[in-house]
Amino acid sequence: MKIFNTLTKQKEEFKPVNPNMIKMYICGVTVYGNLHMGHIRTYIAYDIMRNYFIHFKGKRVLFVQNITDVGHIMGDADEGEDKIERKANLEEKHPMEIVDIYIKNMWKGLDALKCDRPNIAPRATGHIVEIIDAVAELIKKGYAYEIEGDVYFDVSKFKDYGSLSGNKIPKLEAGARVGINNKKRHPSDFAIWKKAEQGHIMQWTSPWGKGYPGWHIECSVMSTKYLGSPFDIHGGARELAFPHHENEIAQSEALTGKKMVNYWAHTGLLMINGQKMAKSTGNFITIDEALKKHNAGIIRYFILTNHYSAPIDIKPESLDSSKKALERINNFISQIQQETKDAPYNPKIYEELNTLKSKFENAMDDDFNTPVAISYLFDFIGYINKALTSKEISIKNSREIIAYFKKINRVFKAFKFWSNKQKGNNQEIEDLIQARGEARKKGDWNSADKIRDKLNELGIELIDNKDKSTEYKKIRVKS
Amino acid sequence: MKIFNTLTKQKEEFKPVNPNMIKMYICGVTVYGNLHMGHIRTYIAYDIMRNYFIHFKGKRVLFVQNITDVGHIMGDADEGEDKIERKANLEEKHPMEIVDIYIKNMWKGLDALKCDRPNIAPRATGHIVEIIDAVAELIKKGYAYEIEGDVYFDVSKFKDYGSLSGNKIPKLEAGARVGINNKKRHPSDFAIWKKAEQGHIMQWTSPWGKGYPGWHIECSVMSTKYLGSPFDIHGGARELAFPHHENEIAQSEALTGKKMVNYWAHTGLLMINGQKMAKSTGNFITIDEALKKHNAGIIRYFILTNHYSAPIDIKPESLDSSKKALERINNFISQIQQETKDAPYNPKIYEELNTLKSKFENAMDDDFNTPVAISYLFDFIGYINKALTSKEISIKNSREIIAYFKKINRVFKAFKFWSNKQKGNNQEIEDLIQARGEARKKGDWNSADKIRDKLNELGIELIDNKDKSTEYKKIRVKS
Repeated sequence: MKIFNTLTKQKEEFKPVNPNMIKMYICGVTVYGNLHMGHIRTYIAYDIMRNYFIHFKGKRVLFVQNITDVGHIMGDADEGEDKIERKANLEEKHPMEIVDIYIKNMWKGLDALKCDRPNIAPRATGHIVEIIDAVAELIKKGYAYEIEGDVYFDVSKFKDYGSLSGNKIPKLEAGARVGINNKKRHPSDFAIWKKAEQGHIMQWTSPWGKGYPGWHIECSVMSTKYLGSPFDIHGGARELAFPHHENEIAQSEALTGKKMVNYWAHTGLLMINGQKMAKSTGNFITIDEALKKHNAGIIRYFILTNHYSAPIDIKPESLDSSKKALERINNFISQIQQETKDAPYNPKIYEELNTLKSKFENAMDDDFNTPVAISYLFDFIGYINKALTSKEISIKNSREIIAYFKKINRVFKAFKFWSNKQKGNNQEIEDLIQARGEARKKGDWNSADKIRDKLNELGIELIDNKDKSTEYKKIRVKS
Repeated sequence: MKIFNTLTKQKEEFKPVNPNMIKMYICGVTVYGNLHMGHIRTYIAYDIMRNYFIHFKGKRVLFVQNITDVGHIMGDADEGEDKIERKANLEEKHPMEIVDIYIKNMWKGLDALKCDRPNIAPRATGHIVEIIDAVAELIKKGYAYEIEGDVYFDVSKFKDYGSLSGNKIPKLEAGARVGINNKKRHPSDFAIWKKAEQGHIMQWTSPWGKGYPGWHIECSVMSTKYLGSPFDIHGGARELAFPHHENEIAQSEALTGKKMVNYWAHTGLLMINGQKMAKSTGNFITIDEALKKHNAGIIRYFILTNHYSAPIDIKPESLDSSKKALERINNFISQIQQETKDAPYNPKIYEELNTLKSKFENAMDDDFNTPVAISYLFDFIGYINKALTSKEISIKNSREIIAYFKKINRVFKAFKFWSNKQKGNNQEIEDLIQARGEARKKGDWNSADKIRDKLNELGIELIDNKDKSTEYKKIRVKS
């Protein structure tokens, strides 16, 4: 399979270091606020990659996603307030209270969106000793210098600087993007250890006095500690490519003398109504807000109808459209699980399913092209719907189809299936169906809908004939 | 109010250091396995203390409960396998994978039991620098010595050793309880830093070579970091008093020269059928198992019908009895919220409620005597039930009673209340009630019960007259 590698700017054949154990590191959240749609987009993308490797490629995956609980400065800068300390000051709490609140909030959101927990979720504060070791080693090797309690990485010493982002040093020196700090030898040098100014709560003893780690060094240390060098895939939002990921490469490769990462995979920007998300303008959707309007399946489906690396622009109608499209798939699944009669096994359907499999997997193998993969699903659904209408499909055919849709759903986690086990008691269900029929007869659609929802909770779906609700009822059970 | 202080072996007037902010540290879990009933008992006890301070005493509480993710040796010993590394080896995972699995599991259990999250849940691996600083300081002050990469606390140097547990040094030297280690100067010395033997995964750079912290020093460092010296209450299971808490006192007081903790509050042992819990014999109940049989309210109620410091012996019928007793309280609440007519305000009931308040709070002020406090609730319920029968209770009376029961429940979190907002739609509810009535007429009790449960989910409770279910129905709504 092929993955677009931001490092080489091309799709490359994916060759993991260890063919049976793929090692992935994803830049995690700085835990000082609620997760938003941008996070959703990123973490769903890597959850899909991870599960595609597991369920379609038969691989084991070691998935590390860090938690930044110190050292991330406002504006991703070298100088200024630590995001977590700032929030703690605003709320008159200890920074570690803020961290615990937002770690809880983060898992709640990611669990609700069915993103599997990482195998390891290392916290920066849990790796201060390793970070100090790394900073000392970089100084010793001549890649970093200390000045008045701060330690800076000297980018001029790392000859490959800019290989990921294209921001080579001469370009940087001329650019206005990097702020001027008199302590730095070059404007593009960056802090790997910061002296704790008076009143800074999060600080640790180091060879350079009391201080705290730079944001970039945290990811270098944690990724290398758990995944070695090189590891297979490093992910994160595209806006992290520079300076964060560029600096990670410089630090890790200067430290180990080895390549840090073989494949860099970045998720595209998520915008709302054509604008970047920004809390200040209200152009902002949190996970909680998204989940109030749409269930996790719809949100995941929406995300994966876009290629992970492409920008997404959410418009007011976007998720409603996804809901409708997903309903088409779910209705298809429902039909196929229900409608099959005892028609003879149909080899044409078998062939069509095999074609779907190869097209679907080719699309996914082509840099996880989920939107194209989904388009093949719809082609297939269109074909099978015709066969259903003319009753040319056997139970064995339908079981094979469902088995494959279930396999897909171990990656997408968006579809609904029905099982043969119902939760409620038959008499109760019959009573409810009867009550609903009566409500419909009276034209009390509101009650009828409510009872239908109730039945749905019990695992029963009704399919009504336009006029006679109970006579044509069909009972199926959600799995 | 009074708290029994394990340090002085007597009930003492509780005087917090800062009268408005009570500082509590509770020994948390070593994250290598599922939580069991012993943990439940301990964490519910401190959750009740914390919330009593907040809701009855108007205090703020800073509640710190650590997570032990390294350094806890099998059998709480100085030598041997780290509990987490052992589990990691068994499951062929990295120790940090084990830690993340069981941290998730721990919160799931404690959340389900309605224990509020700690304000800060510090992890030992997040405080290695502070621990190294503390070990170095103890060596510098002459309280500890290094030998071949291990560092031991020299108990002979800490004159108050044994003040908590009574295990003074001469007694210890004679006892068989402390294993013999040739490196130690005295058998009762204990490790505060351990050299990492070959193959030990969790290890950090230190002035004494690569190693990892002792279990006891972790709690000294984390409690003092977040709560200062002295802080108000240190809690934990009684079996931690020696050596764990005794060693904490020695370390912290040697370090700071100040008293570590003013009040030590220990929870009693939890046994099953008169035996200590033990996984090996199957005499063991996990939180998940307990919650499959009983809801959190019943489990909490069972725990608080025992004084926190007394041993609890769970017998097969224990929780069923609690369930019945709790139902009496819930039925009372249900009655009082429902039955009140427009009788004139009854000053006797007002007085009786005031008597309850003072008795309840006196019991709770007397070392959190929850079983006695509950007995007063039943006295009160008996009295009011009589008033209800003779309809001598006004809406205002009942509102005052409910307000107080709600206040209690912000601490106990075991009772059920009913609000005036119902979740379902009236027509739907009527339909369900009718369906149930018909099931009852047919003698189909199974269906009738199922529909009743369904109605309960919608927030509706039915109270049946023996024969005529629907005519005497009453509708109330769970809050």
